[in-house]
Amino acid sequence: MRERPDPIRLGMVGGGAGAFIGAVHRTAARLDGNYTLLAGALSSQPERALASARDLGLPRGYDSWEAMLEGERALPEGQRIEAVSIVTPNHMHYPVARAFADAGFHVICDKPLVHSSEQAAELVRLARQRGIVFGVTYNYTGYPMVMEARRRIDEGSLGALRKVIVEYNQGWLATKLEDSGSNKQSEWRTDPARSGIGGAIGDIGSHAENLASAVTGLQLEALCADLTTFVPGRRLDDDANVLLRFAGGARGVLIASQIEVGEENDLRIRVYGERGSLTWHQEDPNALILKTLDGPTQILTRGNAYLGPRASAATRTPPGHPEAFLEAFGNIYTALADAIRGDADARYPSVADGARGVHFIEATVASAASDQKWTPAHYAPEA
Amino acid sequence: MRERPDPIRLGMVGGGAGAFIGAVHRTAARLDGNYTLLAGALSSQPERALASARDLGLPRGYDSWEAMLEGERALPEGQRIEAVSIVTPNHMHYPVARAFADAGFHVICDKPLVHSSEQAAELVRLARQRGIVFGVTYNYTGYPMVMEARRRIDEGSLGALRKVIVEYNQGWLATKLEDSGSNKQSEWRTDPARSGIGGAIGDIGSHAENLASAVTGLQLEALCADLTTFVPGRRLDDDANVLLRFAGGARGVLIASQIEVGEENDLRIRVYGERGSLTWHQEDPNALILKTLDGPTQILTRGNAYLGPRASAATRTPPGHPEAFLEAFGNIYTALADAIRGDADARYPSVADGARGVHFIEATVASAASDQKWTPAHYAPEA
Amino acid sequence: MRERPDPIRLGMVGGGAGAFIGAVHRTAARLDGNYTLLAGALSSQPERALASARDLGLPRGYDSWEAMLEGERALPEGQRIEAVSIVTPNHMHYPVARAFADAGFHVICDKPLVHSSEQAAELVRLARQRGIVFGVTYNYTGYPMVMEARRRIDEGSLGALRKVIVEYNQGWLATKLEDSGSNKQSEWRTDPARSGIGGAIGDIGSHAENLASAVTGLQLEALCADLTTFVPGRRLDDDANVLLRFAGGARGVLIASQIEVGEENDLRIRVYGERGSLTWHQEDPNALILKTLDGPTQILTRGNAYLGPRASAATRTPPGHPEAFLEAFGNIYTALADAIRGDADARYPSVADGARGVHFIEATVASAASDQKWTPAHYAPEA
Amino acid sequence: MRERPDPIRLGMVGGGAGAFIGAVHRTAARLDGNYTLLAGALSSQPERALASARDLGLPRGYDSWEAMLEGERALPEGQRIEAVSIVTPNHMHYPVARAFADAGFHVICDKPLVHSSEQAAELVRLARQRGIVFGVTYNYTGYPMVMEARRRIDEGSLGALRKVIVEYNQGWLATKLEDSGSNKQSEWRTDPARSGIGGAIGDIGSHAENLASAVTGLQLEALCADLTTFVPGRRLDDDANVLLRFAGGARGVLIASQIEVGEENDLRIRVYGERGSLTWHQEDPNALILKTLDGPTQILTRGNAYLGPRASAATRTPPGHPEAFLEAFGNIYTALADAIRGDADARYPSVADGARGVHFIEATVASAASDQKWTPAHYAPEA
Repeated sequence: MRERPDPIRLGMVGGGAGAFIGAVHRTAARLDGNYTLLAGALSSQPERALASARDLGLPRGYDSWEAMLEGERALPEGQRIEAVSIVTPNHMHYPVARAFADAGFHVICDKPLVHSSEQAAELVRLARQRGIVFGVTYNYTGYPMVMEARRRIDEGSLGALRKVIVEYNQGWLATKLEDSGSNKQSEWRTDPARSGIGGAIGDIGSHAENLASAVTGLQLEALCADLTTFVPGRRLDDDANVLLRFAGGARGVLIASQIEVGEENDLRIRVYGERGSLTWHQEDPNALILKTLDGPTQILTRGNAYLGPRASAATRTPPGHPEAFLEAFGNIYTALADAIRGDADARYPSVADGARGVHFIEATVASAASDQKWTPAHYAPEA
Repeated sequence: MRERPDPIRLGMVGGGAGAFIGAVHRTAARLDGNYTLLAGALSSQPERALASARDLGLPRGYDSWEAMLEGERALPEGQRIEAVSIVTPNHMHYPVARAFADAGFHVICDKPLVHSSEQAAELVRLARQRGIVFGVTYNYTGYPMVMEARRRIDEGSLGALRKVIVEYNQGWLATKLEDSGSNKQSEWRTDPARSGIGGAIGDIGSHAENLASAVTGLQLEALCADLTTFVPGRRLDDDANVLLRFAGGARGVLIASQIEVGEENDLRIRVYGERGSLTWHQEDPNALILKTLDGPTQILTRGNAYLGPRASAATRTPPGHPEAFLEAFGNIYTALADAIRGDADARYPSVADGARGVHFIEATVASAASDQKWTPAHYAPEA
Repeated sequence: MRERPDPIRLGMVGGGAGAFIGAVHRTAARLDGNYTLLAGALSSQPERALASARDLGLPRGYDSWEAMLEGERALPEGQRIEAVSIVTPNHMHYPVARAFADAGFHVICDKPLVHSSEQAAELVRLARQRGIVFGVTYNYTGYPMVMEARRRIDEGSLGALRKVIVEYNQGWLATKLEDSGSNKQSEWRTDPARSGIGGAIGDIGSHAENLASAVTGLQLEALCADLTTFVPGRRLDDDANVLLRFAGGARGVLIASQIEVGEENDLRIRVYGERGSLTWHQEDPNALILKTLDGPTQILTRGNAYLGPRASAATRTPPGHPEAFLEAFGNIYTALADAIRGDADARYPSVADGARGVHFIEATVASAASDQKWTPAHYAPEA
Repeated sequence: MRERPDPIRLGMVGGGAGAFIGAVHRTAARLDGNYTLLAGALSSQPERALASARDLGLPRGYDSWEAMLEGERALPEGQRIEAVSIVTPNHMHYPVARAFADAGFHVICDKPLVHSSEQAAELVRLARQRGIVFGVTYNYTGYPMVMEARRRIDEGSLGALRKVIVEYNQGWLATKLEDSGSNKQSEWRTDPARSGIGGAIGDIGSHAENLASAVTGLQLEALCADLTTFVPGRRLDDDANVLLRFAGGARGVLIASQIEVGEENDLRIRVYGERGSLTWHQEDPNALILKTLDGPTQILTRGNAYLGPRASAATRTPPGHPEAFLEAFGNIYTALADAIRGDADARYPSVADGARGVHFIEATVASAASDQKWTPAHYAPEA
């Protein structure tokens, strides 16, 4: 348990009453005691924003993010927020993140980062220029066994990597939920104006891309995507199947779907190398399966002494006391707190990871519209 | 996510640097934002107590629980703590709990409650007399799917219950860890002076008894216990196998062991009725398995609409976003917060559950020493 | 695949139309091509016996086992059957086995062997005297991973054994199926005249006892049994929970039930030693789980090179091509064929194992009726 | 258990000493007592062919398949074989099958059927013309739960199908096993002259295609394949990832690999429809997972009364007594026996299924060589 006495002063944009992800961010921030939530512009509707702030007992509620930016800048340094969490629908990420980053606040932004690679590049540039910490909550990389997978791959346990199969299977959009009038999530996530050009591929395919990158370190080179909209009348893809080619010769498959009936939040990855393989599954996150050429399958479990330092440091409880989604999300927040406090070794999904994710979405959408087999998908952040 | 603006003022006794369960309690208290930890006497060693309080940034650190009791009583009502969490080794539960309860503070005490049924009866009496909330952190009943199991049984889905198999399998004490000099947990838990008369049966058998009771509502009538100390030189049992007989004719088996090599925290329960059965496993806590006379096995999972109101209210995230040990522990703290705020419907493991647990430990130890097959084990709280 | 050109001439008593286990025995005998079924007295009803023999195309159908014994004895040595499989309800095992053994035929008898330990002792004596092979189809020990478990224990991988948990969970008798008029199995198995003094404890508890013995080699010393008849009107136990004490200090629990709704054929065993543990589950029989003090859990799977010679020899297909119930049963038949052909190293469940099983049933029934905690259960075959 | 008195007279080409699949075919043929193996040309090497026949005790051993064809034709009708099993390396399937089919023998041929779609079309034509039964041992469709999956889809339980994910994951060719000198399997399977144009895609991708077709009934329309040879020096693909498009709009992914370290024989399929989904896994073949829009996940298990007639008829033992690879293979043989005996309702993988498989292999290899995204893959058997 990592508990520290001096919490970071945090503000939040979005995440008012009824939003799912805002509460997750607040719990993640609270989990290890590293943050204190002092300010919020929790909705795009002024009345609702203020009411939500009151309900949560926030010291400083604002009726718009612009008002919050102005208000906080006007406070003395020791009082104003140090970092802002942006948990709005996607289309608001860019203006809010740019403004707060430009003003020197640290930024924690939900994924996918923004709507276009141009916007992403601008944020990467700005974050570097202002010297701020800018994290993107690809939360699944916060699981200790994901960290352990990367460690073992980096140490060469698998030999050269050959193949990656990454899947994100969901079924909650198998019907036209966005027409039910009772599910805000589905409304904005299927609306191109707010969600961006990607449906399932943007919402969860982006997580899958990030997980594959975080676990393997491989660079994507080209892809071939088949995007489908199965639910009649829906305006964005709800199913994506993608062939992947990585620099160095590794191949892969990425599956992301929101119409696979009965699948809950089935994110999983398999990585095959010359000498071994690793399997991880988000719905059973405390285990990492290791297979080798000759020996028995091994089940590595969180909390044991045979794991590496990062997986151990990201662990709060002993083996068999499962940690899960909120703890992994909390690990991202804690790593960001470390970074904000100056720890140069802190690792978290950065604005560059976010930019690569946006690039990936653009490449899949372009590929889906193309008759050409392979669409280049290399992400090269500008020097 | 249940977030409320007015946190309850909490103090803590025990749980300083190096303790496992103290940090768990603090995280559980923090998780939903229902408590603010203001005071602590975190160690029996004064220096260490004060240092730990400083490290955690507690507003009011005390060098002993007596000093804390005195200090807090002296504060104005709106400032002093409202509740105290007791997370010391077992032998300190009674004096601390009695003193704070007597002074009218709400009490949250770790398990097993106390060393003897006389002490337990005294606390039950005192809690009633003072009108305080007194919870015992049988944390596993905080899992939503445990609540759902009870609901289905109460609704008669299984018909009359026939058999209960409850197990708590651990292996961490398969060697003489208490002699390693580096594991405080094992030292006091294997020391009768601090742990009480039960070893494995007290530490985790008590959890198993509580889980069986919470899930089934059955009253234990008699038991037949075989307690063993496998590790040479250990002074308390490290393995327990118990036959159970319940009022009304149901039978059962309880297994609790800390020498089962490789088992991590394998608490599980199976309940068989005339028409159906339920299985739950702590290491895979988001699922509840339902079997019936004729149909396919069903896997019920946390977060779905087909679950009852208690399981739903104890859930923070959608299906497939696993919640785990800390969230279940947090659910106990949140239910206690509800109770402290006056919610008469709040359900949590109470001081009476704690007393029944102590009674159970005494009965197993007596049975183990007896040549008689059945030892009465009925717990009748005094009227 | 073990295929041999000279099949053993086999006869069968019992196993006519509608019987479950007769067809299993025939398939097991046929699987590796080691037997040819030439003669049968397949029912106690003469007409039915002859009709069943015709339906199966048996060269020599008899209307009673006595007629078969006489008829086969009258044939020249190279034509008459060499071995007989006895697959009748339990009460017929003894007279048939005794008569055929006495006449010098090899005997393959279903379990439990007979109704009393006196009968069992007589068969043990007779088999030795006549120099015949006498196997009892405790078929579950025919699984390769069960053999591997024993090998690893014999080699000391687990260190000294401390604890055994063996379970046989079924639910098919949760209702009064024997009154349905359509289930022969349930009729004779719940009838003391045909089944013997044990219900669930005899039918499947006996399998559990045998599995524990086969895997661990431990000698049972004493037991404490709680037998229950849950279904009203049933005349034998349908649920058994038993505490076990082994020579040398190991302890155990045996659970056998036929009223656990929804359980199919859930035979499983866990063995814990000082340094490791092994888990095996009949419904997932190609895996053996190995846990150690410090390393990751290992999943050993059938067909791999790291397994010992017996498990390998009992395997027909490569890893991942699952083998199951019939193959394990076939392994018993094949080992018996090896023994009949003179292989002194062939291992199979013998008449002595059958006698020990009968002794176990008697001890549990005696214990269940006793107020004394421990009932002696040591089986000492006469020298 | 389906036992019949009048076995079909069977011959075998290939499958001598050291071959894996020959013994599997013989066991499958023997399992239900439907065949008697009378003749064999078990190797392409005359000496070896005769020795193998002797070792197996075959009444009529031949030194070549041509000799066997001639010899059997010369026998009287009631003595000569009725059917021939062809279990040679792939390149011999065509000449042998054509000759025996042409002579009016029923043919049971291993997969993939032949090397080219022209050869396949010829066999389809010939089988029709001669009126023979011609089966191709796509053995995995012999599993009862695969049959049940098809039944539920046909009955509309899932609604219109949207997506199919079928995988066949193996790792046994992750190293250059074909150079070891001790593994015949790997030698011919990686040799284009004997195996054909497909490596992994032909050997196991073909099984995956067949399973998807058997379970869903969907017609493939186009595909996009990425075939890779990972092991240096190997001459055929050892890894295949394929996007699928079906007539009617369903989409899919097919993965077939033999370099996925540690995977044994991991064939699995997931089918998603508008209202439900089904999952089946060959290494856990007795279960079929059914998910729906609103209810709990259901685990359907072999042997239960809620299953359909085909799954029930293909079942030998009660629930929980697992049946596996050999039983499923045996079910194909038994269905072929039914067909040979004139049962018009018998269902088995036919020569047309084999031809479609060859067509699929050709389409994937063509797609892998193409820059065009989609390669037509519709199989239209000539009228």
